[in-house]
Amino acid sequence: MSVARIDTAALDAAQTRQNSLTKPQGSLGNLEDIACWFAARQGKTIPDMLRPHVCVFAGDHGVVKEGVSAFPSVVTGEMLKNFAAGGAAINVLAKQNAARLSVVDVGVQSDVSTIEGIKHAKVRAGTGNITKEAAMTEWEYWQAVAVGEEQAEKAIADGANILIAGDMGIGNTTASAALICELALFTPEEVVGRGTGVDDEAYQLKLKAVRRALQRAQHTPSKDAMRELGGLEIAAMAGYYRAAARLGVPVLLDGFISAAAALAAVAWDARISGWMLATHVSQEKGHALALKALGLEPLLDMNMRLGEGSGAALILPLLQSAIALHRDMATFESAGVSDK
Amino acid sequence: MSVARIDTAALDAAQTRQNSLTKPQGSLGNLEDIACWFAARQGKTIPDMLRPHVCVFAGDHGVVKEGVSAFPSVVTGEMLKNFAAGGAAINVLAKQNAARLSVVDVGVQSDVSTIEGIKHAKVRAGTGNITKEAAMTEWEYWQAVAVGEEQAEKAIADGANILIAGDMGIGNTTASAALICELALFTPEEVVGRGTGVDDEAYQLKLKAVRRALQRAQHTPSKDAMRELGGLEIAAMAGYYRAAARLGVPVLLDGFISAAAALAAVAWDARISGWMLATHVSQEKGHALALKALGLEPLLDMNMRLGEGSGAALILPLLQSAIALHRDMATFESAGVSDK
Repeated sequence: MSVARIDTAALDAAQTRQNSLTKPQGSLGNLEDIACWFAARQGKTIPDMLRPHVCVFAGDHGVVKEGVSAFPSVVTGEMLKNFAAGGAAINVLAKQNAARLSVVDVGVQSDVSTIEGIKHAKVRAGTGNITKEAAMTEWEYWQAVAVGEEQAEKAIADGANILIAGDMGIGNTTASAALICELALFTPEEVVGRGTGVDDEAYQLKLKAVRRALQRAQHTPSKDAMRELGGLEIAAMAGYYRAAARLGVPVLLDGFISAAAALAAVAWDARISGWMLATHVSQEKGHALALKALGLEPLLDMNMRLGEGSGAALILPLLQSAIALHRDMATFESAGVSDK
Repeated sequence: MSVARIDTAALDAAQTRQNSLTKPQGSLGNLEDIACWFAARQGKTIPDMLRPHVCVFAGDHGVVKEGVSAFPSVVTGEMLKNFAAGGAAINVLAKQNAARLSVVDVGVQSDVSTIEGIKHAKVRAGTGNITKEAAMTEWEYWQAVAVGEEQAEKAIADGANILIAGDMGIGNTTASAALICELALFTPEEVVGRGTGVDDEAYQLKLKAVRRALQRAQHTPSKDAMRELGGLEIAAMAGYYRAAARLGVPVLLDGFISAAAALAAVAWDARISGWMLATHVSQEKGHALALKALGLEPLLDMNMRLGEGSGAALILPLLQSAIALHRDMATFESAGVSDK
């Protein structure tokens, strides 16, 4: 598999430029690092401003039958209607931060075929119940990955230079917790959180479901964590990340589900993580651990736990500001300001 | 002194609205709190989008003679030219985030009277050397406060509904450290930091200067910390915060200098802190302590340490997103989405 290379010469040139701008060296903190990070990914001393595309992938989860979620599976389809009508958080954030938005049905349980304005690419109507069976077949797994890859390719062809994958799927914090345990070697106790807000009883059921799914997966011939434990939308997100890294376009990670997809992508090829920026750490237990396993440092902690790509879309203007500062500030020389 | 009241009925109504929006309750984290915070300050269930004004106050510091800064005092005036020409960080951030920007000479040492596009309100050409004498006279102190008050009143009259005070002044982390020690009862060891980036030798001189200034101030009849230890630009910022709270318009705090000014304003009237939002915690040692003393929790940690209002201007789009989500998201009822 091919992963685009990072331009270290552009990185050095960008760092030199940062040190010439009218401010004490390093005083813009993370904003300096962000500008240089994009310089190295775009291969330009002064990177272009960001043209973001958000793609929300939706799928359902058979494990919801185990009582692991505060909301019923029907909500996934209802939320697709809400996305199409512009009423969800990600609609508002995409509009506010000038990002294009696509919504894709990869595996919603309800029939959403009559909803207009979304991409219909259903691979299967929800995964299997991972406590008892594989989430999906080998063929379904690669189909879902291909849906994500295609969306990334299309967004890039349409001019995007930064990609965000969002998720919608009742039950997907359970699948993501299982994936993160399997891929990054944590225990369910470390990783399983409250998701959309389950009570103590459902939390115990969730913990038990993840334990059972992990035990079951250990005794199957397949060694692919996503196929055994994952989700159709999570597989698509992993494919989206992989295609972006292949085409040399950075991605912004969002929350817990996004981290599970990122770990799956990195399991294909570790170099993919070089194209990922961690935007925030969520309230979901285990997200901080998953980011650590990815070797990524989140920029914000806003106590969010919504998904949909919301945390990643929120941070876009901070990245735009970092690039604008890098591009537009005067140098000590041009402004006639005395250096140290 | 009068301080505008906070509307708790609007706060309750805003919280009720948040809980009706199509997301798990609380899942937008700090963004929910931010929307409700503005609702309570604007007295509206759905607050208006922000119309921000940034005012950068500039002044010099006699204590620079003690070798406390990495840059010479002449840089303050040079940076005023840079602000007027649009080349500084705050120019870029104000433009990027649709904020109006004013720059005011309250006490710059150099003659900057020929620079166009800035407000000329010099009270005195730099403060006294606080290790040996009061920073300013009683009259100068209240003059500087009045300059800040006037700027806040003018910005509000021109339509601003959120104010940011920025600072420019070589040596002002030394004055601010002394102020924070005096007003919030910390030791110089806890509060004195590296400012624009002093080396170990200058750091020791800075620590010694703050200790001497605090000892001197203890033996003077005046009990006003700002007059003894402060800065002309810091006094103006305190006045700016006071006028905003009187007129019922919130302010966004920036970094270390801003926190010193905020503590001085709160020493006049504790209720002023109800109109302050802490945007970020800077790299400057003591900033986190000063915010704690103010009872404020910063939203971001971007490792910044520039001043000029930069950290506060950077965060504006996150606040706009919080308000847009609160205003534009569908409710469970309107979108036909099943609640728990």
